[in-house]
Amino acid sequence: MRILLTNDDGIYAPGLRALRTELLKIGTVDVVAPATEQSAASHSVTLTSPLVVQEVMDDNLTRIGWAVEGRPADCVKLAIRQILGYQPDIVVSGLNAGSNAGINVLYSGTVAAAVEASFFGITSIACSLEYTKANPLDFPKAAEFARRVVENIVASKPATGSLFNVNIPSLEKGAIKGIKVVPQNTSTYKETFEKRMDPRGRTYYWLGADFSCPDPHPDTDTHALADGFISVTPLQFNLTEKRMLPEMQSWNWKL
Amino acid sequence: MRILLTNDDGIYAPGLRALRTELLKIGTVDVVAPATEQSAASHSVTLTSPLVVQEVMDDNLTRIGWAVEGRPADCVKLAIRQILGYQPDIVVSGLNAGSNAGINVLYSGTVAAAVEASFFGITSIACSLEYTKANPLDFPKAAEFARRVVENIVASKPATGSLFNVNIPSLEKGAIKGIKVVPQNTSTYKETFEKRMDPRGRTYYWLGADFSCPDPHPDTDTHALADGFISVTPLQFNLTEKRMLPEMQSWNWKL
Repeated sequence: MRILLTNDDGIYAPGLRALRTELLKIGTVDVVAPATEQSAASHSVTLTSPLVVQEVMDDNLTRIGWAVEGRPADCVKLAIRQILGYQPDIVVSGLNAGSNAGINVLYSGTVAAAVEASFFGITSIACSLEYTKANPLDFPKAAEFARRVVENIVASKPATGSLFNVNIPSLEKGAIKGIKVVPQNTSTYKETFEKRMDPRGRTYYWLGADFSCPDPHPDTDTHALADGFISVTPLQFNLTEKRMLPEMQSWNWKL
Repeated sequence: MRILLTNDDGIYAPGLRALRTELLKIGTVDVVAPATEQSAASHSVTLTSPLVVQEVMDDNLTRIGWAVEGRPADCVKLAIRQILGYQPDIVVSGLNAGSNAGINVLYSGTVAAAVEASFFGITSIACSLEYTKANPLDFPKAAEFARRVVENIVASKPATGSLFNVNIPSLEKGAIKGIKVVPQNTSTYKETFEKRMDPRGRTYYWLGADFSCPDPHPDTDTHALADGFISVTPLQFNLTEKRMLPEMQSWNWKL
């Protein structure tokens, strides 16, 4: 199995390195990942600046892949259209430092990289590790769980181009209780801004670090994760609110 | 009607100015928009740098709104949580220079700003104008059509928090044929990269300007737009592929 590995934390991130080690047990792995951290980059792409690409070696001077001065979605496009010279069997994105559940799925560069791969009809899996104050995060252990989930998905032979979002609960919360297949939570997150003034009298704001979901819907990704389960959510990229189409078609449109 | 207007082309973009002029005919308008162009920013948000906010005046020194050194989604969050001091009745994003149909919906900062507003339960409408080689684009005329579509939507009293994506065809193609309510196209786009070498021997790539959809599915946004209709698509932000949930729940999951 030929695996393309990417992420949004950058090619030097420990989560990617740990996941690469695990994925090498089940296939060949080429890494094409951002040169620098791109957290919360969502599905942004680079239109107006060039994408510099450089090979990245491990400590034995063996190539692990390529660093791209761009976004996660740029990496996937470039890998498939230019760099690899082959179509990978699956694309894996992660292991992200921090969960990507609920509406965070929309902000996530990790998930966007997997969505981009699914535009090419390639089965893709985004993998994230719930963030806690434990430092360092136990990426090697979490990557083992992520690899097992990838194996489970591949063994189940999903239709080519299927897209999955996997979240591993923080390992500091105790033993993982199991795997839950659940939809994305859509309930509201709590967030705050902190207002400050710079030395020149300009107002600025910091988005607060506490972006939590106090009341996730039951049987969703956010809920399963909070409860100590690995969440697996099948995704798709048609944002149409199909239920509204018939009603809207009967509206009295006038130009 | 109190309208929050934002965009991804930046607060000084002619598309925003033209749309503001039109929206002032149907309500009060406060603008909170990026200080600089943020095209293809998607739903990215700013976590690791401060969001400087400055008032922006028109030529008569009347405040039109605030420029935010951040992303379109940052602007919407900040406007609602900090700047405005009230909850707008609707959020309008645009008028974007370039259509946002098909999978472009995923890359679009214009659409992401509207999605962010819907996270707050506010009805929101993304408006984009198909780009052609005509220069300058006729934003004033296109903004008139966008305002009429906004009026149609408001008059139809959609559920609060509803989310719409509106695309206006290029006015150079002739008279607009009407309005079509259609789902998002999901067929593949054509794109290319151009490989170059910098003076220091580093490889870099430019994403080509031709990002077109040669074969849009019939009765979709991309198709309607190509055919000369204004497309209106109801959107939602739950990416779950619901059809796969029951099957996946029966897979043989093992950790």
